[in-house]
Amino acid sequence: MFAKVLKTIKKYGMIDPGERVGVAVSGGSDSVALLTVLHDLVPRGGFSLVVVHVHHGLRGAESDRDADFVKTLADGLGLPLATGTIPPGTLSDGGGASLEDRARRERYRIFDEIGKLHGLTKMALGHTLDDQAETVLMKFLRGAGAAGLRGMLPVRDGFFIRPLLETTRREIQEFLDKRGILYVTDSTNEDDCYLRNRIRRRVLPELAELVNPNLAETLERTAEIFRDEEDWLKEMTNSAADRLGLRFDRVPVEIDLAKLRDCNRALQRRLIKLCLNSVPVGGPERGFEHVEAVLSLVEGDNPSGRLDLGGGLEARREYDRLVVGRRPEPDETTVGTSFSCVARCPGVTPIDAIARSLSLEMVDKAGAGTAGIAFMDMDTIDGLLTVRNVLPGDRIQPLGMKGHKKLKSLFIDAKVPRRLRCRIPLLADARSIIWVPGICLSERVRVRKETRAVMKAEIV
Amino acid sequence: MFAKVLKTIKKYGMIDPGERVGVAVSGGSDSVALLTVLHDLVPRGGFSLVVVHVHHGLRGAESDRDADFVKTLADGLGLPLATGTIPPGTLSDGGGASLEDRARRERYRIFDEIGKLHGLTKMALGHTLDDQAETVLMKFLRGAGAAGLRGMLPVRDGFFIRPLLETTRREIQEFLDKRGILYVTDSTNEDDCYLRNRIRRRVLPELAELVNPNLAETLERTAEIFRDEEDWLKEMTNSAADRLGLRFDRVPVEIDLAKLRDCNRALQRRLIKLCLNSVPVGGPERGFEHVEAVLSLVEGDNPSGRLDLGGGLEARREYDRLVVGRRPEPDETTVGTSFSCVARCPGVTPIDAIARSLSLEMVDKAGAGTAGIAFMDMDTIDGLLTVRNVLPGDRIQPLGMKGHKKLKSLFIDAKVPRRLRCRIPLLADARSIIWVPGICLSERVRVRKETRAVMKAEIV
Repeated sequence: MFAKVLKTIKKYGMIDPGERVGVAVSGGSDSVALLTVLHDLVPRGGFSLVVVHVHHGLRGAESDRDADFVKTLADGLGLPLATGTIPPGTLSDGGGASLEDRARRERYRIFDEIGKLHGLTKMALGHTLDDQAETVLMKFLRGAGAAGLRGMLPVRDGFFIRPLLETTRREIQEFLDKRGILYVTDSTNEDDCYLRNRIRRRVLPELAELVNPNLAETLERTAEIFRDEEDWLKEMTNSAADRLGLRFDRVPVEIDLAKLRDCNRALQRRLIKLCLNSVPVGGPERGFEHVEAVLSLVEGDNPSGRLDLGGGLEARREYDRLVVGRRPEPDETTVGTSFSCVARCPGVTPIDAIARSLSLEMVDKAGAGTAGIAFMDMDTIDGLLTVRNVLPGDRIQPLGMKGHKKLKSLFIDAKVPRRLRCRIPLLADARSIIWVPGICLSERVRVRKETRAVMKAEIV
Repeated sequence: MFAKVLKTIKKYGMIDPGERVGVAVSGGSDSVALLTVLHDLVPRGGFSLVVVHVHHGLRGAESDRDADFVKTLADGLGLPLATGTIPPGTLSDGGGASLEDRARRERYRIFDEIGKLHGLTKMALGHTLDDQAETVLMKFLRGAGAAGLRGMLPVRDGFFIRPLLETTRREIQEFLDKRGILYVTDSTNEDDCYLRNRIRRRVLPELAELVNPNLAETLERTAEIFRDEEDWLKEMTNSAADRLGLRFDRVPVEIDLAKLRDCNRALQRRLIKLCLNSVPVGGPERGFEHVEAVLSLVEGDNPSGRLDLGGGLEARREYDRLVVGRRPEPDETTVGTSFSCVARCPGVTPIDAIARSLSLEMVDKAGAGTAGIAFMDMDTIDGLLTVRNVLPGDRIQPLGMKGHKKLKSLFIDAKVPRRLRCRIPLLADARSIIWVPGICLSERVRVRKETRAVMKAEIV
C-alpha cells in the first residue's frame, strides 16, 4: 500500500518539501491509515503535519468517542491537533441524503477555516479508490456527462489532496491489520437509508460479481480518462467562447446565432450551458433539458422565440442573436401573479399561483376543444413545454390565421379584465405560445388529417 | 409511441422518399412493432419496405416457428420477404457470451449481403431505448471512455438505422397490446447465463429502484451527449494528427516526441491509441493499459526504450521520435521460441512457450536473490510489466554498474548457449529490461535502504 500512496502523491505533485499539511482524521480506518502513511513520510518528504478533526455532534456519544480517539492518536505521534465543531443547529432540519450533503459542505467550510487559522498549505483527505468508484457510479447512474465522470479530483483548488485515491479499501485494511493499528468504526456506514451506503454495500458488490470483478479499478480509470478529457473540452469551450466574443461579466449574455450554428453540436451544448449558468439568478444549475430547449430555440423558425428557464432566467432570440438573461420585470399589462414552470408531459403540473393544474396526456384522436381543453399534434411540438403567465411582447399565430397577434390585443378583443390577464396559464413550447386557454390555440400545433399522435391539454 | 418513432426518424434523417428500406424482423415484439410503424408510414413517407429475416438455427424448432411467423406477417402486409440463414457450423464452437457475439456479427454480415442483393438503401433494426440503456451501462461497467458511452448509433455507416432507439420497451408493449398485434417470444431472453440478460433482468431494475427510476432515459441521454462529444474529440484528434504529420498509411507510424509532449494529456492518449490501432497486427484492440504504458515510455528517461504490446506490436523510442510498428523479426541471436505477455502484478503469469510461470507478489522486505528469485523496489517500476524473450539490441544496466550492457554480451559472458538464450524469460517495465533471471538484475530497480515496498519476482 505504501508504494501506491507514494506513487499517487508523486504523480499529482501533492506535497512539496516545506509544506504544512493538515490531515483530516475522523478516526475511521481510511483516515487513520492516511495519517500513518503521511507520518512515515515526514522525514523523507520534509513537510510537517497537523491532525485535523471535525466533531460532528450528529452521532452523540459516538462523536465524543471519535474525538477522544483522534486526540490520543495525535498525542501518540507527537503531532499538533486542530479541531472544529459543526454546531448542532446547522444540520437540524431535513434528513436522509440531504443531511449528509449539508454535513459534508459544513465539514469543508471548517477545513478551510482551520487551514487559514493554522497556516496549512494542504489538507489531506482519506478518500479511497472505492469511494471514487462509488462516486463515479452514482454520478453516471444519475446522468452525468464527462464533467461528472471525473469523480473526485486528486487535487482540488490546490489545497485539498487525496493521497489514497488510487488505493483500495482492502489494501488499507490489510495494511492496518498487518501493523496492528487501531481505528474506530462509524455506525452510520451500515445504514442503508443513505444512497452511498446502498451503492457501497449492495450495488457495487453485485455488479462486481455479475459484470466486472475489477469494477472499482475500472471506474477510477474511467475517472482518470475523463479528468483529462474534461480539461481539454473545457479549454476548447473557453477559447471558442472568446472567439465568439462572449462576455460573461455582464447580463444578459449574448451569442451571435450564425457563429453558434457554425459550431458542432457538442460545442453548442457546452457554450449554451456556460451562458445559462453564468447569469446569477435563482434555481439549481441548468442541465441537459434546459440546454436542449435552448438548442431548439436556436434552430427553430421563430425569430423572436422566448424560453422561460425558471428561477427568473430567460433565453430569447433577438434578430441574429441569442440572449440569455433575467426574465423582464412585468409591466403594467401583466402586473400581479407571476408563475412559470416546466410542464410534465404526460402528467399533471400544479400551478400553485392560481391554484389550478395543467394535465397533458396522449390520446387516440382529437375531440372537441373547449375553454379548458385543447388537442394538439404532438409531432409539431418543439422542445420543452412550459406553463407560465403572459410576458410583454408575447405573440401567437391564432388558429386559421397566417400572421401573428399580440396576446395583449387578444386579451383586449376578448375583453379579459387587465387584473385577470396574468392569471391565465399559457402553454408554450420552445418556439412560441401554443395555447391560450379559453381564447386561442396556435395554428402551428393544429391537429390535421395526417396527425398520428394527439396530445390533450386540460386546465383542471 | 408513433409520435416518438417519427420524431427519431426525423431527428436523425433516417429515411428519405424513394428509399428501399429493409426491416429486420425476428418476430419478437420490438421488431414487429417496428415493422407496423414503418408500414403505417409508407404512404406518407414515399419509401418502400422489404421484410428481412435471419434464420438462426440456434434454437431448433423455435427458429422454424419464428421464420414461419415472419413469413405470415410479411404476406399479411403484402410486403416482399428476404431471408438469410446462419449456417449451423458457423457458430458451433465456444459458448456463452462469445456465441452471442458471433451470432450478432454473422447477422450483420447477412444483413449486408441481403442489402446488396435486394438493392436496399437502409436496414432498420428494432433496438429500443432499453436496449440502448443496457448497452451503455454494460460498456460503462467494463470501462469504456467517451467512445463506448455513445452506445448504439441511431444511424450506422449510412445504412443501419434504429428508429426505436428513443422508445421504451413499455411503450412498445402498450402499442402492441392496444392494437392487438401478435408476436413471438425468444426463450433465450430468459436465460441468465447471458450477461445482457442479467443486466436486463436483474441489474437495471435494481438500479432503477435504488438510484434512479428514470435510469433508461438517463442512459440514452448520456449516450446522446457522448455521441456528439466523441465526434468532436475525434475530429480534433484527427486534425492534431495531421498537424503532427502522422501518416497511418505506412508502418511504422512515427510521432515527433517534442510535438507530442506539447499536446495535453487527453490528446496524447487519443493520438497514441490511434497509432497503436492503425498498425495491422494480431491481437485485440489496444486500450487504456497499453496507452498508459506507451505514455510512460514517452515520459521516461530511456532514449531507446522499447515496449512490447503483444501480437507482434511494438512501441519504441528512436532519438526524438516515438515509433509504433511491428516487432522486429528475431535475428540469428534470438532465433527459436518467441513469447511476450503482460505480467500480472500481483499474480502468476503462465509463459506457455517455455512451460514456466512468472510469479509477482508484494513482500515485507527483500530476501536473498537466487537464480530464480529477485527482489525489486516497487516504487521504481514504471508502467506495464511484461515478460518476454530477448530481442536484438536489448540492454540492461547491471546491478552496481553505471553504464548499460547488451544482453547478447551478458549471455556470451555467462556462457549461455545460443539456442537457450531465447528461452530465458526477461522481466521488463515500460523503460527497460529489469531482470534477466539467473544472470542479472537492473541497478534501477535495486532495493535500497529507503525502499518502502518490495516486489518479489519468481520463475516457477
